[in-house]
Amino acid sequence: MVHVIDIDDPADPRLDDYRDLNSSDRRPDLPDGKGLVIAEGVLVVQRMIDSRFDPISLLGVDRRLTELGADLDDLGVPFYRTSAEVMAEVVGFHLNRGVLAAAKRAPALALDEVLDGARTVAVLEGVNDHENIGSMFRNAAGLGVEAVLFGDRCADPLYRRAVRVSMGHVLRVPFARAANWPNDLELLREKGFQTISLTPHPEAVPLAEAMTGEKVAILLGAEGPGLQERTMRATDVRARIPMAPGTDSLNVATAAAMAFYERVRNGC
Amino acid sequence: MVHVIDIDDPADPRLDDYRDLNSSDRRPDLPDGKGLVIAEGVLVVQRMIDSRFDPISLLGVDRRLTELGADLDDLGVPFYRTSAEVMAEVVGFHLNRGVLAAAKRAPALALDEVLDGARTVAVLEGVNDHENIGSMFRNAAGLGVEAVLFGDRCADPLYRRAVRVSMGHVLRVPFARAANWPNDLELLREKGFQTISLTPHPEAVPLAEAMTGEKVAILLGAEGPGLQERTMRATDVRARIPMAPGTDSLNVATAAAMAFYERVRNGC
Repeated sequence: MVHVIDIDDPADPRLDDYRDLNSSDRRPDLPDGKGLVIAEGVLVVQRMIDSRFDPISLLGVDRRLTELGADLDDLGVPFYRTSAEVMAEVVGFHLNRGVLAAAKRAPALALDEVLDGARTVAVLEGVNDHENIGSMFRNAAGLGVEAVLFGDRCADPLYRRAVRVSMGHVLRVPFARAANWPNDLELLREKGFQTISLTPHPEAVPLAEAMTGEKVAILLGAEGPGLQERTMRATDVRARIPMAPGTDSLNVATAAAMAFYERVRNGC
Repeated sequence: MVHVIDIDDPADPRLDDYRDLNSSDRRPDLPDGKGLVIAEGVLVVQRMIDSRFDPISLLGVDRRLTELGADLDDLGVPFYRTSAEVMAEVVGFHLNRGVLAAAKRAPALALDEVLDGARTVAVLEGVNDHENIGSMFRNAAGLGVEAVLFGDRCADPLYRRAVRVSMGHVLRVPFARAANWPNDLELLREKGFQTISLTPHPEAVPLAEAMTGEKVAILLGAEGPGLQERTMRATDVRARIPMAPGTDSLNVATAAAMAFYERVRNGC
């Protein structure tokens, strides 16, 4: 069971892991700072507890402590109980979810580890928007995508906003970095994955035709620039979502969702 | 050509149509207030100019005036030219898009008008999130959905944030309100549309099987509550996106995008 500790002084140093959550240079979840992972809200905190990211403490109002109830049974860490006002002062803004948990980053997973047993994976390049990354993990979880690989220049998936938008699924869907980019794509091919570049280019093959592999890796670039040419050249096929003429490319998380859907609709 | 008028006093009453854009009770795009429609940024302003919503004025910095260039040729309205600082003071926050246009609301379209000639339409019930509505219009435009119908309890699609998130497509994809809800669904049936309720319910038919009509109307409810039972009962079929067990329902705009995609993948 958690140790409930009442705190009413916002300056209490025991709350430092939750201080200035919106500060771009001091927030506790900066990868090159404290490097913590922050979960917000009952649902996401529950998912953190069930994940490989073990909370080191929680901060919340009494009502959320009650709501979490038995979920906290196996946690031997402090629950700092306070008021909504003190919480707002500590984190730097009003937080209507009423509970936070902080975890240390779990050890990074290796590419091999996340690929073993996976049949559908998403591979991101240059996706630097935290909300898009969060949405992508939510969609990945919902549509049975088993792993996410990060190529070059992606934003940190463990930033609080990505964790929140993913509804905690970034803590559960395994991910790994492809440090050797794009050469690591070779590893996917060795493991039997069909590698598919998603692109709006009109000469690409319609997605439904292009996706033929039993195991597939779906590559996605950022909205706007898309995937790099040399990355696409390193994949098996370029696929497009058939779009109406004269419109913009789709949001990257939405495009990803359609590719994930293309898998589940075919019973994969 | 627009009449360029330099203004450097943020209190100038000619800028009142742009004042306090974030204010919940004074913003100029409140449907029961001034009822204006506000476009932000060069791309969305261009789309407004091409739409049935005619700008009554523009406000922006010199650089954006230059960028819009020939797009303004046929507009006989004022372009209030000012600095980014004055703009920020008028609208109430820093706006990095540098240009705004205000239009009066175009007359509402009738159901018949938006349905004639359409083969794929989206029908929303209880979707009260502006960003979801905006995303839905962006996806509708991208995937060839020809009209959006609003049933009960939906948020205003012409709110600035919805216009922005839609990338201006809310000004172009025709929409209408179904005032007689859900009885207006009968009209869809008379016009030969297959009406499909999207629901996460496990007993619903997989979407790919359920969508058989030459003309289809896809019904979507808000995340969480979903469609009302009586609404689903008034449709031809209940369809689901096959999802991984133990996950949340998808974001409503994402679910809509998959249904729209299911149409385009089949060449509809």
